[in-house]
Amino acid sequence: MKYRVYYEDTDMGGIVYHANYLKFCERARSDWFYDNGLSPATQEYHFIVKSIKAEFIKPARLGDILEVSNTVLEVGSASLKIFQRIECNGMEIYTQEVVVVCMKGERIRRLPEEIKGFLL
Amino acid sequence: MKYRVYYEDTDMGGIVYHANYLKFCERARSDWFYDNGLSPATQEYHFIVKSIKAEFIKPARLGDILEVSNTVLEVGSASLKIFQRIECNGMEIYTQEVVVVCMKGERIRRLPEEIKGFLL
Amino acid sequence: MKYRVYYEDTDMGGIVYHANYLKFCERARSDWFYDNGLSPATQEYHFIVKSIKAEFIKPARLGDILEVSNTVLEVGSASLKIFQRIECNGMEIYTQEVVVVCMKGERIRRLPEEIKGFLL
Amino acid sequence: MKYRVYYEDTDMGGIVYHANYLKFCERARSDWFYDNGLSPATQEYHFIVKSIKAEFIKPARLGDILEVSNTVLEVGSASLKIFQRIECNGMEIYTQEVVVVCMKGERIRRLPEEIKGFLL
Repeated sequence: MKYRVYYEDTDMGGIVYHANYLKFCERARSDWFYDNGLSPATQEYHFIVKSIKAEFIKPARLGDILEVSNTVLEVGSASLKIFQRIECNGMEIYTQEVVVVCMKGERIRRLPEEIKGFLL
Repeated sequence: MKYRVYYEDTDMGGIVYHANYLKFCERARSDWFYDNGLSPATQEYHFIVKSIKAEFIKPARLGDILEVSNTVLEVGSASLKIFQRIECNGMEIYTQEVVVVCMKGERIRRLPEEIKGFLL
Repeated sequence: MKYRVYYEDTDMGGIVYHANYLKFCERARSDWFYDNGLSPATQEYHFIVKSIKAEFIKPARLGDILEVSNTVLEVGSASLKIFQRIECNGMEIYTQEVVVVCMKGERIRRLPEEIKGFLL
Repeated sequence: MKYRVYYEDTDMGGIVYHANYLKFCERARSDWFYDNGLSPATQEYHFIVKSIKAEFIKPARLGDILEVSNTVLEVGSASLKIFQRIECNGMEIYTQEVVVVCMKGERIRRLPEEIKGFLL
């Protein structure tokens, strides 16, 4: 998954605003679903973020192409732990470990089979 | 309505990212509702933006206090035209004329009486 | 220029937050520069937005693919007026007329020749 | 430090978009500086985020007032570890442990004395 850094992503430090790396990672989780023929959110399920451990290693700048990879660490009955790495020009610039929980409306629900299917 | 400019609002030009002035104006419209004991969105109504004419006059910077004023220009049966001005250190830095339309779910609805009440 | 709508772009109305259409348009202006071998911002020049007239015609939703087109309306000595249209599933959903001004640091400067070159 | 949740902060789930909690925390760090007569960024110093461990405990919604507290956990020669908690209606809804590093331009620098002063 590749994403370009635009003006909107930068801050007055001339680099990507720290919270925006979480957005790039969320795009990559969504595109991973789309690439497997699924939506990241339907009437039947959606995901909420439970926890994130993020390491900001190097800054990215306007025009940089960010490459985001997703690695499943754990599949629970209703949750996923995913490791995400952002690379830029072949260098690791950001990593996060994120736990997401599957919901239907305001309640936790089991992971749908079609999602388990492409994760495992 | 006063709002401080934070790091998140700036871009690599060192000034507030242009689209963020629209957000400050939306905060001011919301706070105007809250100050009149109303929510800007309930099960019964919410608003969508129909058009905006924006003039970016001077830039704002980190730490600046933006003062946003709302002036009703027109009250339609289901819509409002509002003039909003942002001042910073006593100088006008941004203006917009915005038309918002009152909705219930996906349909246009008449302005609730309690909203007309504080507008007129 | 095609951009997908992600979770970050939506609001509690279930549609794209109004100010985010300006961001999609800015990405399209940037990609137009990149596609012509230029950066939208260098030490020598960058652009600031002077005015925007925006029409919000139909809402976009999660997963929608937005197609943004740029049409030059006027080329001034230091400014550009551009018409931008966003389509989604073949329907026009948003238009804006934007005036941007070319800057070097905090001063207005003439449009660089290489930019005039691909605009005209 | 109190901040209201606006439309811009929400997503299609009807709650605050996860990455935006980091923004509320950053506002609170900035306001903490301002309340002590200092800017969070000057020509002499600014801060970059090195790592974040975030727990998303309960969701916040439009109109909620978020109360953010800052607790210094560690003061290094050039870095700070801060614990931040967001409460809403008296309940803890989000916590993060953030490490920020003091910079001058692109280089790490020692914490200025005036900052150490109010931290300790």
